[in-house]
Amino acid sequence: MRAVKLYAPGDLRLVDIEKPTPGPGEVLIRVREVGVCASDVHYFRDGRIGDAVVTEPLILGHEFGGEIAEVGPGVTNVRPGDRVAVEPAIPCCQCDMCAEKEYNLCRNIKFCGTPPYDGAFREFIAWPAQLVVPIPDSVTMGEAAMLEPLAVGVYGVDIAGEVRGKTIAVLGVGAIGLSILQAAKAAGCGEAIATDLLPNRLELARRLGADRTFVADGHVVDSVKEATGGHGPDIVFEAAGENDAVCQATQMVRPGRLVVVGGIPRDDRMTVTASVVRRKGLTIKLIRRSKATLRRSIQMVEAGQVDVASYITHRFPLEQITEAFVTARDRKDASLRVVVQL
Amino acid sequence: MRAVKLYAPGDLRLVDIEKPTPGPGEVLIRVREVGVCASDVHYFRDGRIGDAVVTEPLILGHEFGGEIAEVGPGVTNVRPGDRVAVEPAIPCCQCDMCAEKEYNLCRNIKFCGTPPYDGAFREFIAWPAQLVVPIPDSVTMGEAAMLEPLAVGVYGVDIAGEVRGKTIAVLGVGAIGLSILQAAKAAGCGEAIATDLLPNRLELARRLGADRTFVADGHVVDSVKEATGGHGPDIVFEAAGENDAVCQATQMVRPGRLVVVGGIPRDDRMTVTASVVRRKGLTIKLIRRSKATLRRSIQMVEAGQVDVASYITHRFPLEQITEAFVTARDRKDASLRVVVQL
Amino acid sequence: MRAVKLYAPGDLRLVDIEKPTPGPGEVLIRVREVGVCASDVHYFRDGRIGDAVVTEPLILGHEFGGEIAEVGPGVTNVRPGDRVAVEPAIPCCQCDMCAEKEYNLCRNIKFCGTPPYDGAFREFIAWPAQLVVPIPDSVTMGEAAMLEPLAVGVYGVDIAGEVRGKTIAVLGVGAIGLSILQAAKAAGCGEAIATDLLPNRLELARRLGADRTFVADGHVVDSVKEATGGHGPDIVFEAAGENDAVCQATQMVRPGRLVVVGGIPRDDRMTVTASVVRRKGLTIKLIRRSKATLRRSIQMVEAGQVDVASYITHRFPLEQITEAFVTARDRKDASLRVVVQL
Amino acid sequence: MRAVKLYAPGDLRLVDIEKPTPGPGEVLIRVREVGVCASDVHYFRDGRIGDAVVTEPLILGHEFGGEIAEVGPGVTNVRPGDRVAVEPAIPCCQCDMCAEKEYNLCRNIKFCGTPPYDGAFREFIAWPAQLVVPIPDSVTMGEAAMLEPLAVGVYGVDIAGEVRGKTIAVLGVGAIGLSILQAAKAAGCGEAIATDLLPNRLELARRLGADRTFVADGHVVDSVKEATGGHGPDIVFEAAGENDAVCQATQMVRPGRLVVVGGIPRDDRMTVTASVVRRKGLTIKLIRRSKATLRRSIQMVEAGQVDVASYITHRFPLEQITEAFVTARDRKDASLRVVVQL
Repeated sequence: MRAVKLYAPGDLRLVDIEKPTPGPGEVLIRVREVGVCASDVHYFRDGRIGDAVVTEPLILGHEFGGEIAEVGPGVTNVRPGDRVAVEPAIPCCQCDMCAEKEYNLCRNIKFCGTPPYDGAFREFIAWPAQLVVPIPDSVTMGEAAMLEPLAVGVYGVDIAGEVRGKTIAVLGVGAIGLSILQAAKAAGCGEAIATDLLPNRLELARRLGADRTFVADGHVVDSVKEATGGHGPDIVFEAAGENDAVCQATQMVRPGRLVVVGGIPRDDRMTVTASVVRRKGLTIKLIRRSKATLRRSIQMVEAGQVDVASYITHRFPLEQITEAFVTARDRKDASLRVVVQL
Repeated sequence: MRAVKLYAPGDLRLVDIEKPTPGPGEVLIRVREVGVCASDVHYFRDGRIGDAVVTEPLILGHEFGGEIAEVGPGVTNVRPGDRVAVEPAIPCCQCDMCAEKEYNLCRNIKFCGTPPYDGAFREFIAWPAQLVVPIPDSVTMGEAAMLEPLAVGVYGVDIAGEVRGKTIAVLGVGAIGLSILQAAKAAGCGEAIATDLLPNRLELARRLGADRTFVADGHVVDSVKEATGGHGPDIVFEAAGENDAVCQATQMVRPGRLVVVGGIPRDDRMTVTASVVRRKGLTIKLIRRSKATLRRSIQMVEAGQVDVASYITHRFPLEQITEAFVTARDRKDASLRVVVQL
Repeated sequence: MRAVKLYAPGDLRLVDIEKPTPGPGEVLIRVREVGVCASDVHYFRDGRIGDAVVTEPLILGHEFGGEIAEVGPGVTNVRPGDRVAVEPAIPCCQCDMCAEKEYNLCRNIKFCGTPPYDGAFREFIAWPAQLVVPIPDSVTMGEAAMLEPLAVGVYGVDIAGEVRGKTIAVLGVGAIGLSILQAAKAAGCGEAIATDLLPNRLELARRLGADRTFVADGHVVDSVKEATGGHGPDIVFEAAGENDAVCQATQMVRPGRLVVVGGIPRDDRMTVTASVVRRKGLTIKLIRRSKATLRRSIQMVEAGQVDVASYITHRFPLEQITEAFVTARDRKDASLRVVVQL
Repeated sequence: MRAVKLYAPGDLRLVDIEKPTPGPGEVLIRVREVGVCASDVHYFRDGRIGDAVVTEPLILGHEFGGEIAEVGPGVTNVRPGDRVAVEPAIPCCQCDMCAEKEYNLCRNIKFCGTPPYDGAFREFIAWPAQLVVPIPDSVTMGEAAMLEPLAVGVYGVDIAGEVRGKTIAVLGVGAIGLSILQAAKAAGCGEAIATDLLPNRLELARRLGADRTFVADGHVVDSVKEATGGHGPDIVFEAAGENDAVCQATQMVRPGRLVVVGGIPRDDRMTVTASVVRRKGLTIKLIRRSKATLRRSIQMVEAGQVDVASYITHRFPLEQITEAFVTARDRKDASLRVVVQL
């Protein structure tokens, strides 16, 4: 079967590998659509995120939807032909974090498409049946692929605690930022502000619920403060993947309130001004993927509470995957989420 | 009356200034003992903390106890002769933060001994009567001066939320760290670990309740992890005033848990490894002075729940204040808290 | 000017009283529409609620909208002609509860239309300017009157804490129950179940967001449990004003979870089965009117997030107020909220 | 081996039954001391608690300490000779509550000495090894038996949330009330008030940390309010097992605050005044046994933070168990906890 492996930064190759057989408790998924996430782009560009380094050829990809092709022994929750969304992280269920059901913080997690675990840019993938969830007919395969960033956004709002009536800002409105925005709106937040460098993203943010938007230029901190009566937002979500945005978040947020960091920066240092965060008595929380939000995300899509189809601006066949990654990396042609179809 | 002003880094001068008269709602306090805090040392050494800069000669000092010498018109809560502890921050009571009773985050706060507001290294100081609290006879003037760092420690544990039964670590056991340690113990925390570069401080930490202590050397992260069954502490309090300690805190803390930053670093950047804090899904909280903990701190001292007298290792008369600051700055002669007596 | 006073249970009389003059900081409101609340009906029927007893002729009514007719000295937040919603409770701003901003629990509260304070069934009422809020043109006078029960429902969901993704049940879907239902939906709750004795109310509940509804018959506990996979809802809101509903709530709710009691029963005893609530380790919270939710409620109506116009099934002129109260008391003609127009 | 069974209310008989053999994962415990709990007394007096009814002869008793006599296959956490405390509840580990680690709310719980599961008034008992915890040499067998009520008290304070600096009252200071009192003190509560009908219990409460005590007479609500500056305590714990105490709790507690109900009343109805609890906007929480507090309780006893030995006022041999129950039931001879020794 066909698959795509990353051999070195920038070097993606279409290869032929053996089709896997589902073991006990596993299913074989026919992969249909796979999103190119910012973390995939990190590996494509730099070969690493922090100390997670691609040392052997690796299949990337963890945002995907597909159909059940086959079920292994003992599987009862899905059947061949079922259309499914996938939880891309396999927890060990043995460690102290799993014992406390904090599966996203599992000490031995195997994450799809993160070294050394192969991901989803291939025709078939075997996966634990407990980690796939059937989706209703009304949810498309593209939406299924976008459920993963949505689940991250929903989780990001979860860890922000109570958002009802609170003023929020989302810095960076790619797929994660837009998911945070929509999840916060669905949770009853008050005024929602979005910032980004790209006007087309701000336009989409407005369409998806942002009450005000600002270009993330040198005045953005002042603009957001002014838009909130000088107080600053109660919660600022950083989803730009840039340390600058983390700093802006700490500068604009209301004293005593919360900054939630969701982006993955290229430079693995997070640096803020100590006297700013201390004098404001801030809380900073970091989003680690998602926990227990996939089913809720499916319901939100099904109920029409959120729109994730709009994230997808480009689609490429597997054969053009390098073009897909370059489009995503360079935000070419106003790309937002680029999806690979099989 | 006598006072001491900082004219430039390292340049403290005994000067003669006019004795103040208490206005309406104010009291005149005869200052008795004043602690030399790490933030005083910052101004002494560098003339600044972040963008708070000493531009005019300034009287430092905010940890102090004294006696009411005189009361201004309308004052009813204290009388001449009362021995008092002092809340060193004057909130504006007008801004949005004050409206929410978050006085420590007041946007127009006047903090005693912080530019441009003169502090307590002088014979008499006028202060709002509402911000002084009588202390029982059993509390000494030295303890009164130490109530301010204690109140910060108590507040630091407050913002940590529930600590009952939880394993904690305190990195840096000067007056703030020891106050955090004792406040956490008084709040029913589980095993308490302390780290510091100085063995005499660790010895005092053990006497004040630390169950285990480690020298803050290159192995301290591993040592603390090992001491906690490999999991890491549930809450790590940084009170060393060093970015290294903040990094150690993020490295040793249990995933999904909390780092509370209480120290004031010389370099005004707080830098942590992004992939570490993100993969652990951490929460980082910053202590901003204290809020509503002075009275509780007095009760804790009175009830013998905490020992703050032990913080004071050196006492100097006002005339030797430069020696006092140098002793504090250089941790000379195993100094912990240095106090100036008037 | 015209007003209506309750002289004794069942005895409402149209009387002529002097038109008030707004004092400093007060406004004079031309009352337009006033809802007949269940608590008004209690006073109409029984002359009391618990130990709050009507001993002198009293003007009832606290759910109302109107226009500013005149402003007293010093009023700057509204002007004559402004259309306004009204916060019906006047806190003393002196007691310990007010000091903590828990105004709804003020120890000396003056509540509009609750003995001994006259209410809104009259042409003009003077009210503190700080407690009136202008409403946008898009909000009708009937909706303005319904903002009060909406604010109670929004507050009820506030005290329930996090509702996101949680299964809820609302027992009794009059104006308060429907407001809770809509506020919970707006806060992102999961499946919402409604129960009531009256099918027309259940139909409206479904229209306003209930996913499932059940007639509150002898099987309702089993029905709700079954509808929630045998587990029971995470949060059950009682808004029926019947002790039976409180008992059903404790029986159907999931162990370890929450019952929020919002109704005002005729019999002033709340009785539950001790072994049931204890074995389930339940939390029971009581809604006390509302706190800080009026402005948010206005925004929700304006944004179309909630529909309160649908609560109003009947309108009567002031002259027919007895008919209005009888219609509300007896739920005649499938009445839900009855409104008096002036 | 010898055991005691309850045949009917008041009818305890010493019988000879077969000594059990520990199955896989079980241990055989040589029972040493067993406390007579208020719930045991309920069964002895009435044959029931709510709808839990003794229909077959039943061995009561769940507060006990003993020594490991034998271990079944696969047991590694304890060895013969180990002195142990025992978690008396066996969760099913299958239901939805166990899945969320809320073992005390397990839907299929088997509780030692609660119909139809035999308890500890016998020479030997087989128990899951995972539910026994070795105790240090410094902890006596009597203290081991008292760890169960202590664990309940610690859990009661856990569910009360943050208690630091808060004023509390404990109504009823038997073994549970005293455990709550001591656990709250260990968690840093502020002023602690205790009430009881019996002066000797109040005296013990003072010795164990109560700052003020009041006889639970007709003036107790006023007395407690007055002692708290008219405000009422922040948290009132009911541990008297009387509905009157629950009512007093709701009457004295500060508005907007918390009542925690820990007692088991003889009459299975909990009745409060609806207008009181509503107007105060109270939260009422029910203690269901304990969860995850046994190990912490052992540490507290070992560290000398709490004194549970003082609960035990009487000891009887197994042969005099009826006398033991009568002494406990009638609070004869100022009895507090009565213990049966084997």
